[in-house]
Amino acid sequence: MANNIGRLVIIGGAEDKEDDCVILREVVKLAGAREARLLVLTAATSQPQQVGAVYRQVFTRLGAAEVGVLDISDRLQAEDPLLVGLVPEASGIFFTGGDQLRITSLIGGTALFHALGAAYRRGVVIAGTSAGASVMSSTMIIDGSGDQEPAVGGVRLAAGLGLISDVVVDQHFAQRGRLGRLLAAVAQNPYVLGIGIDENTAIVVDGPHFEVIGAATVSVLDGQHIAFTNVSEVSPQGALALAEVRLHILPQGYAFDLQTRQPWSDAATANSRIAKGGS
Amino acid sequence: MANNIGRLVIIGGAEDKEDDCVILREVVKLAGAREARLLVLTAATSQPQQVGAVYRQVFTRLGAAEVGVLDISDRLQAEDPLLVGLVPEASGIFFTGGDQLRITSLIGGTALFHALGAAYRRGVVIAGTSAGASVMSSTMIIDGSGDQEPAVGGVRLAAGLGLISDVVVDQHFAQRGRLGRLLAAVAQNPYVLGIGIDENTAIVVDGPHFEVIGAATVSVLDGQHIAFTNVSEVSPQGALALAEVRLHILPQGYAFDLQTRQPWSDAATANSRIAKGGS
Repeated sequence: MANNIGRLVIIGGAEDKEDDCVILREVVKLAGAREARLLVLTAATSQPQQVGAVYRQVFTRLGAAEVGVLDISDRLQAEDPLLVGLVPEASGIFFTGGDQLRITSLIGGTALFHALGAAYRRGVVIAGTSAGASVMSSTMIIDGSGDQEPAVGGVRLAAGLGLISDVVVDQHFAQRGRLGRLLAAVAQNPYVLGIGIDENTAIVVDGPHFEVIGAATVSVLDGQHIAFTNVSEVSPQGALALAEVRLHILPQGYAFDLQTRQPWSDAATANSRIAKGGS
Repeated sequence: MANNIGRLVIIGGAEDKEDDCVILREVVKLAGAREARLLVLTAATSQPQQVGAVYRQVFTRLGAAEVGVLDISDRLQAEDPLLVGLVPEASGIFFTGGDQLRITSLIGGTALFHALGAAYRRGVVIAGTSAGASVMSSTMIIDGSGDQEPAVGGVRLAAGLGLISDVVVDQHFAQRGRLGRLLAAVAQNPYVLGIGIDENTAIVVDGPHFEVIGAATVSVLDGQHIAFTNVSEVSPQGALALAEVRLHILPQGYAFDLQTRQPWSDAATANSRIAKGGS
C-alpha cells in the first residue's frame, strides 16, 4: 500500500470503553465526529458477533452517525463486491483484536484489502487495537512469549497490511513484558523502528509523525545506532547482544517524528529538569 | 563502604544449582577454587536453614574447601564478635535471596556490615542472588510491580549496602517484566546506571568494569543522555516521559566499562553485522 501518508490510530489493546474513552472518542472525531460513518472489521476475532456488538454500542454512544460491523470469515467474502462496497462508504475503519494472522490470511491481497488501501490514501482514518494494531505495519509480530529475555528466536514475524512501513508495532507492551520480543524484531533489521504500545494507550499517526494518547506509555526502540550485535551468529534460543539501542518512553502529550526519529513535546523545554537543572 | 574497588558477583536470581552451575562455579573460583572458604549469609530469607543447606551442598559439590552458613535474625547478632569474626576467615561471601530490606535492616551499620566492607576492600569476592543482588548498590530497589508501564511511583528505593555505587541493580529482570520499574529508578537520577539482570545470569564486577556470565542477558539502561523527562512534574501514578535512554543488551562474553559506560566484546568487531554489512 502506501508509505505513511494517511491517518492511523494504533491502539495497544484493552482501551477504555466505559469512562472517558479518550482513544475511541478520538477515532470517532478523526472519522468526522457526528458525521462519522464507522465500519468495524471483526476478522481478527473468533467471536465476531459479541465483539462487533461491543464496538457498535460504544461508538454509537460516542456520537458516531453510523456504525456498521463487517465480519469476514473466508477469502471469498473478501472478494464479494457487496461487502467490499461497504468500505468506500465509511469515514473510519476499525480493526478489533483477536489474532493478527486471521486478518492477513483472510484479507491479504483481496479486493477488500485494496479497498482499504484506497480509503487510507483518501484520508479515511484506519484504527486497530491489539491484533488490529500489530497488523498495520509492513512487518508484524505474530508470536513470541512475554517476560522472556531477548533471543533471536524469541519472536515470529510475518507480512502485515503495510499501512505504515519501517516500523514494527507491539501491543499490551508493558503489561505483558514484551521488551525482549520487540528487541529481537528490531535486532533483525534495525531499519525498522520498534513501537511498543501499552494497554489503553494509542499512537495517532498523521503522515510523518505520531502523537501519543491514553493512559500509559509508548516505548520507542530505535536500533539505527546499534554499535554491535550477535544476531546473525547466535542460535535461535541464544541470548541476544545489542549495543546502543535508543529508547524513548512517551505518554500522552508527547509525539515522535518518524523521519528524524526524534521525540518531542510542546512542553519539552519546560519539562526538562535535565536541561534546566531543576528549580 | 568503597567505590567499585573489589570483586562482586551479582546474580539475577534462579541460578543453576544442578547442571553446569556456571555462575556458582565462578563464585567458588574467585574465592580461591579448592582453597575457597565461603560464608553464606541467609539474612534475606525467612527459611535460613533450608536455603543455607542448599548452598552448603552445591558449593561443597563445586569443590569449595569450606562452606559456612551464618544466619542473622536480629541486630544484636550482627554485633556479636564471635559471629562477626567469621567474616575475616572467609575468602568469599554469598548473600542468598529473600527480602533485601531484611539484609539492610538487620546488618546496616553493624559490626558485621563493617567487617564485610573491610573484606571487600581486601579483595574478598562478595556474591549475591536476587535480594542479595539488589542489596549490593548504594541505592537499591525494594518494591515495584512487574509488567507495568513506567510511572514515577512505580518503584520504591532504599539505601543498600553500597558495595557498588552509581548503579541500581534489578533482578529477575526479563522474567518479571521489570523494565518499567528500573526506568523509573533511572529517571529519578540518571546519574545512576540501571542494571537489569535476568535469571540464571550474573555480572562479575572487577573494579571499573563487569563481565556477563550465565544463560540470559543483562540490560543496561544509561540515562545520562536523557534529553527530556516529566519525572519531576507528574503525579506518582502518572505515566513517565523519557527521551534518549541508551539501552544495551549483554549476554555471556560481553562486558561493560562502568566509567565510560561503554559495552564491549572481544569478538565485537567480528560479530558486528551492522559495521561489516554481513557476508
